[in-house]
Amino acid sequence: MRYITGAVALGAALVLGTLATTAHAVAAPAQPTRTGGLYAPTALVLTAGQGESRATATVQRAVTLSCMPGATGSHPNPKAACAELRTVAGDFNAVTTAPSDRLCTREWNPFVVTADGVWQGKRVSYTYTFANSCAMADGIGAVFDF
Amino acid sequence: MRYITGAVALGAALVLGTLATTAHAVAAPAQPTRTGGLYAPTALVLTAGQGESRATATVQRAVTLSCMPGATGSHPNPKAACAELRTVAGDFNAVTTAPSDRLCTREWNPFVVTADGVWQGKRVSYTYTFANSCAMADGIGAVFDF
Repeated sequence: MRYITGAVALGAALVLGTLATTAHAVAAPAQPTRTGGLYAPTALVLTAGQGESRATATVQRAVTLSCMPGATGSHPNPKAACAELRTVAGDFNAVTTAPSDRLCTREWNPFVVTADGVWQGKRVSYTYTFANSCAMADGIGAVFDF
Repeated sequence: MRYITGAVALGAALVLGTLATTAHAVAAPAQPTRTGGLYAPTALVLTAGQGESRATATVQRAVTLSCMPGATGSHPNPKAACAELRTVAGDFNAVTTAPSDRLCTREWNPFVVTADGVWQGKRVSYTYTFANSCAMADGIGAVFDF
């Protein structure tokens, strides 16, 4: 809308040579708003807890992770976590389901990991349930290792 | 379940005087798991963006906020934000809808703020839509002031 109005104002300036600047100023928002800066924001909360699902699991650990401009947060190794997420382009499934040669028992003592927030401007809400702590140790990658 | 088994084991110990310890040991989890530490975790991602709803708004800014053990995160003023959240016991509604004498125009140019993560061990997923930037400036408190 601003740009259309601006284009109309420019046309008016070319034809009439008057009032173009005023028309453009009116089209601008009444109050300045802060924008997001140079990069798309990345800010995440990662949790781990014992239970079957996001709704029922008790959150035992929770950390924050920011990847832009620098890798920071309460995550114990934000650099490795951000590097891993960049490698998989923010696809958390690729982190938790990476194949491995590790042999695990098959008992059901589930652990849930979650990721919520924003990855490069896109909303993230991810949940994955590991069958037991062995499967979890195998599949947490650097991202969920906290 | 563990505690029930423990109680049963204790009863058995009182009556029979044997095997109680063994029964309790079996009830314990097979593999040690890391627990959450001394305090319930608090880790949040706060976002702000222009739009009508969480689903449609473009995330313009996103910050992380941790309140335990210390107030940290990419939030510009984590101490004030954590203090405000503690005052309202983590009730984000109390932050965004606090009454004020400010007069705002009523045009619809909505801004959405969100909070996701964990507040003192409890999952949080909060969304609030401000009608315009004036209403937002009025209702963001210290929490959403980033």
